[in-house]
Amino acid sequence: MHVGLVGLGKMGNNMRERMRRAGLTVVGYDRNPEVTDTASLAELVQKLDGPRVVWVMLPIQVVDQVIDELKGLLAEGDLVIDGGNSKWTNDARHAQSLAEKGIHFVDCGVSGGVWGLENGYALMAGGDEADIALAQPIFDALKPEGEYGFVHAGEVGAGHFAKMVHNGIEYGLMQAYAEGWELLETAQLVTNVRDVFNSWREGTVIRSWLLDLMVRALDEDPHLDTIEGYAADSGEGRWTVNAAVDLGVPVPTMAAALFARFTSQQEDSPSMKMVAAMRNQFGGHAMKADDGN
Amino acid sequence: MHVGLVGLGKMGNNMRERMRRAGLTVVGYDRNPEVTDTASLAELVQKLDGPRVVWVMLPIQVVDQVIDELKGLLAEGDLVIDGGNSKWTNDARHAQSLAEKGIHFVDCGVSGGVWGLENGYALMAGGDEADIALAQPIFDALKPEGEYGFVHAGEVGAGHFAKMVHNGIEYGLMQAYAEGWELLETAQLVTNVRDVFNSWREGTVIRSWLLDLMVRALDEDPHLDTIEGYAADSGEGRWTVNAAVDLGVPVPTMAAALFARFTSQQEDSPSMKMVAAMRNQFGGHAMKADDGN
Amino acid sequence: MHVGLVGLGKMGNNMRERMRRAGLTVVGYDRNPEVTDTASLAELVQKLDGPRVVWVMLPIQVVDQVIDELKGLLAEGDLVIDGGNSKWTNDARHAQSLAEKGIHFVDCGVSGGVWGLENGYALMAGGDEADIALAQPIFDALKPEGEYGFVHAGEVGAGHFAKMVHNGIEYGLMQAYAEGWELLETAQLVTNVRDVFNSWREGTVIRSWLLDLMVRALDEDPHLDTIEGYAADSGEGRWTVNAAVDLGVPVPTMAAALFARFTSQQEDSPSMKMVAAMRNQFGGHAMKADDGN
Amino acid sequence: MHVGLVGLGKMGNNMRERMRRAGLTVVGYDRNPEVTDTASLAELVQKLDGPRVVWVMLPIQVVDQVIDELKGLLAEGDLVIDGGNSKWTNDARHAQSLAEKGIHFVDCGVSGGVWGLENGYALMAGGDEADIALAQPIFDALKPEGEYGFVHAGEVGAGHFAKMVHNGIEYGLMQAYAEGWELLETAQLVTNVRDVFNSWREGTVIRSWLLDLMVRALDEDPHLDTIEGYAADSGEGRWTVNAAVDLGVPVPTMAAALFARFTSQQEDSPSMKMVAAMRNQFGGHAMKADDGN
Repeated sequence: MHVGLVGLGKMGNNMRERMRRAGLTVVGYDRNPEVTDTASLAELVQKLDGPRVVWVMLPIQVVDQVIDELKGLLAEGDLVIDGGNSKWTNDARHAQSLAEKGIHFVDCGVSGGVWGLENGYALMAGGDEADIALAQPIFDALKPEGEYGFVHAGEVGAGHFAKMVHNGIEYGLMQAYAEGWELLETAQLVTNVRDVFNSWREGTVIRSWLLDLMVRALDEDPHLDTIEGYAADSGEGRWTVNAAVDLGVPVPTMAAALFARFTSQQEDSPSMKMVAAMRNQFGGHAMKADDGN
Repeated sequence: MHVGLVGLGKMGNNMRERMRRAGLTVVGYDRNPEVTDTASLAELVQKLDGPRVVWVMLPIQVVDQVIDELKGLLAEGDLVIDGGNSKWTNDARHAQSLAEKGIHFVDCGVSGGVWGLENGYALMAGGDEADIALAQPIFDALKPEGEYGFVHAGEVGAGHFAKMVHNGIEYGLMQAYAEGWELLETAQLVTNVRDVFNSWREGTVIRSWLLDLMVRALDEDPHLDTIEGYAADSGEGRWTVNAAVDLGVPVPTMAAALFARFTSQQEDSPSMKMVAAMRNQFGGHAMKADDGN
Repeated sequence: MHVGLVGLGKMGNNMRERMRRAGLTVVGYDRNPEVTDTASLAELVQKLDGPRVVWVMLPIQVVDQVIDELKGLLAEGDLVIDGGNSKWTNDARHAQSLAEKGIHFVDCGVSGGVWGLENGYALMAGGDEADIALAQPIFDALKPEGEYGFVHAGEVGAGHFAKMVHNGIEYGLMQAYAEGWELLETAQLVTNVRDVFNSWREGTVIRSWLLDLMVRALDEDPHLDTIEGYAADSGEGRWTVNAAVDLGVPVPTMAAALFARFTSQQEDSPSMKMVAAMRNQFGGHAMKADDGN
Repeated sequence: MHVGLVGLGKMGNNMRERMRRAGLTVVGYDRNPEVTDTASLAELVQKLDGPRVVWVMLPIQVVDQVIDELKGLLAEGDLVIDGGNSKWTNDARHAQSLAEKGIHFVDCGVSGGVWGLENGYALMAGGDEADIALAQPIFDALKPEGEYGFVHAGEVGAGHFAKMVHNGIEYGLMQAYAEGWELLETAQLVTNVRDVFNSWREGTVIRSWLLDLMVRALDEDPHLDTIEGYAADSGEGRWTVNAAVDLGVPVPTMAAALFARFTSQQEDSPSMKMVAAMRNQFGGHAMKADDGN
């Protein structure tokens, strides 16, 4: 099978490799001449047989534009798959726009990070049954071996929605483990916190892949001295909390995890300035933090 | 009426003044020779008529010792009032110890800060009816004019418990206002955030004394540029959350406010180091915070 | 001054009364024939002198339609004020649409509830200086006496944004007080919780109008036995959290308060079903809640 | 090796079985005559060779008493292991009491639930090196095969402390997954939520044993219709949050998870009654929940 792949960054590049290992013929396009297989999107489209399948693996900021370009280049019956971290609310718009020329659309959430090349990528796809079937060889190439790792989650938008919720859960899980680690490090009752985490990898209720990764991180740096306590957020955590708020679903741990990241991103916390200012006002302190009475 | 007052720090000193303005005869003792009225606790006790009433206004760390000393100096029928920020769970122990010599005990939570001298102090007292009655002239001297500001909250311990919950509520209120202020400052839709807060002081649902103080703080420093985003916590916020946990009472805003202070007290956040480390592990980043992908 | 007032529900009706008491000539319109002054919007517009000022006080669901109708009826130089609980993101759209006919627009957040008639309404207005000046007699009629209660918060949208944040703060404050009340009620150390709250109305750090209202509520029903633990949310709390998330502002207490309301609105909690199901799986319980081991 | 095992409930019974499968000679005692091997604690002690090792696997409420009894029955050089869900702060007390007779003490947190019999139990032990070495054959019998599942966490108390933090993390993880599930169920964009969870079992960042259990639960009851949204809490979640508060460690997701369980345990929420009552007061509603305006 032939597939066009637009976007050869860290994820796209590895995905091209995994597809090729599975025997697919991949034509990749990227603005970076060092990694691209073709000089242009137009050339990429020309190199594919119909019905053409083009997988878009790009940052959300440029997806609109690329899908517009593909709309001009592709023909009726072709299929565009948005595999990037796009917001699920964009999917219906993209599907409708492409449908004006009879081009089909599937959204696909992808999880796996740098481990995907070897372990396979988890895929959550949204779209019509026939479009999913057309792309199935690609999904089969990318997904992990075994019975898990791919799901047809529902109509257009459902793939990115499922991936968004996946990431919301991920935020909560990471924060919970991190709190536990901080508590053990701070209490200093446990002699070797890394060894405790390592021991938890079998037999416990909390064993998981993230736990394995924590031990890897602690093996590299036992007290994380070289790591700054700064955690970026990719957008999907925000969308998850916003979606939950819109739906009236309480998500206290997801929100707590997101807010912890927000705080980590601040040089100084405006809200805590105000809390300190109020304390100064009723405590009679000078106008800066002093003894905290 | 005569009253002994042990502890003439920022709070005790003002309280002595307010009692004297109300016509009480106050004998104060403090280790600081510049503020004390007597050379020793023993001398303070000698200067009082029986039944003697001694108000203790000290940091929690030294209360045990001072109450022990008073137990040795006072006699049957005398009354000790602990007005400091003591933990309510200590009160029964102090009451029992003093009762061995027939000395009575009342605990009293005090709120008001530096404004108490002029506005009066809010008082929440715990103890037997007769002991409260004996101390009533002191309460009347300290409390604000009007019908509010004093309550006999219950038996020994109830005063400090009520004050503890007061402070737990205070944490939540301050955090909520502070979040709103940060949101207005960050959004930059509102031209003058101070003016908005000022306007809220009448007619709104959220008008309060804390709001008045916020405007005072913003009048001194409109964007709090001179204030560090560091908020100490006095212990009572911690006790409140712990008491709620022990009782199975959900207190999400109190806990959130307390945790925000904890975070503000950290140079760097260990838990966010771990979140960052996990992201590095699955995202394939170098072992320090980089572009946040 | 003449003013048209569209929407005579609980809020609008009281506002008409307060404006009239202040000497304004108010022409009100409502679909409810029992309260309306005119038979139609068109008639209302005819009864006003130019430049006409029309205050819209309607549920968000019908504001779009009414502003469209007013656009057809009003003329260049007239002014529409949206005083309802509209989302601030709608304001620019309304302003632009009306501007096509030279009609001006001001948004105004209104706080005060049923107490506004007597105490005055707090008003947060967004719009051009000249438009605010034109409407100032109305603001002066509605606002509380004294120096507080009205603010020109910024350009179009700033009024509703400020009101939205006001409500977000309100959610947090209410939740914090409510948690404190639950804690006192549950601990049963304090003999009379109502009396403690009442005593807090002067001298404390947490004195506020909401605290006064709590005492009123407890006077009517000391343990709130007749009240169901169900708290609706009006939309503004949701918008506040969503705005904070979009801006990267941590709002843990606002979110906690919102989620507590969400939970209170559920018959049974799906997420807690899943927590229980997981416990059953690893604890070996039968597939329903049993002894909670 | 011989080992005495006190407490043959769900956990203890399975642990006896796993020890016996590993070739250990286990003498079990339980008040329940149907499962006990001996008529009394005294008889159990008599059947063991010295140095005797007695593993206590009992609810926290009866541990004090049983350790007192064992203190009377055992001799210098014997070893007591507390493997139950005891609070880590009790361990030093038990160790000191037993040490008065030269009896040694080890605390051991045990995780694994009903799956431990087949998969092995994760063990976190606290105590002196020599005592751990004495008990190592028991740990080896109970732990999972492979390199993980056992850790000597530190001195006495460290085992239960590590287990406590494990459970705190567990609370956070379960809540995060549960929120994600509720969000997917509520949004109804995903056609088959169970299939999405199932697909996540490989390739995703959030794959874990708890995720496997969720799929098992959904296979038994796809929408958890037969499960009540009631989640008990075992005590360790409370201790974790309390320990974090005492240490000044922010644990927002652990606390949120704990509070969600508290709320699930309430018939009606007192705090939400108060929120509703306040809304009634300023909104002018009748004194019961009505339309939520």
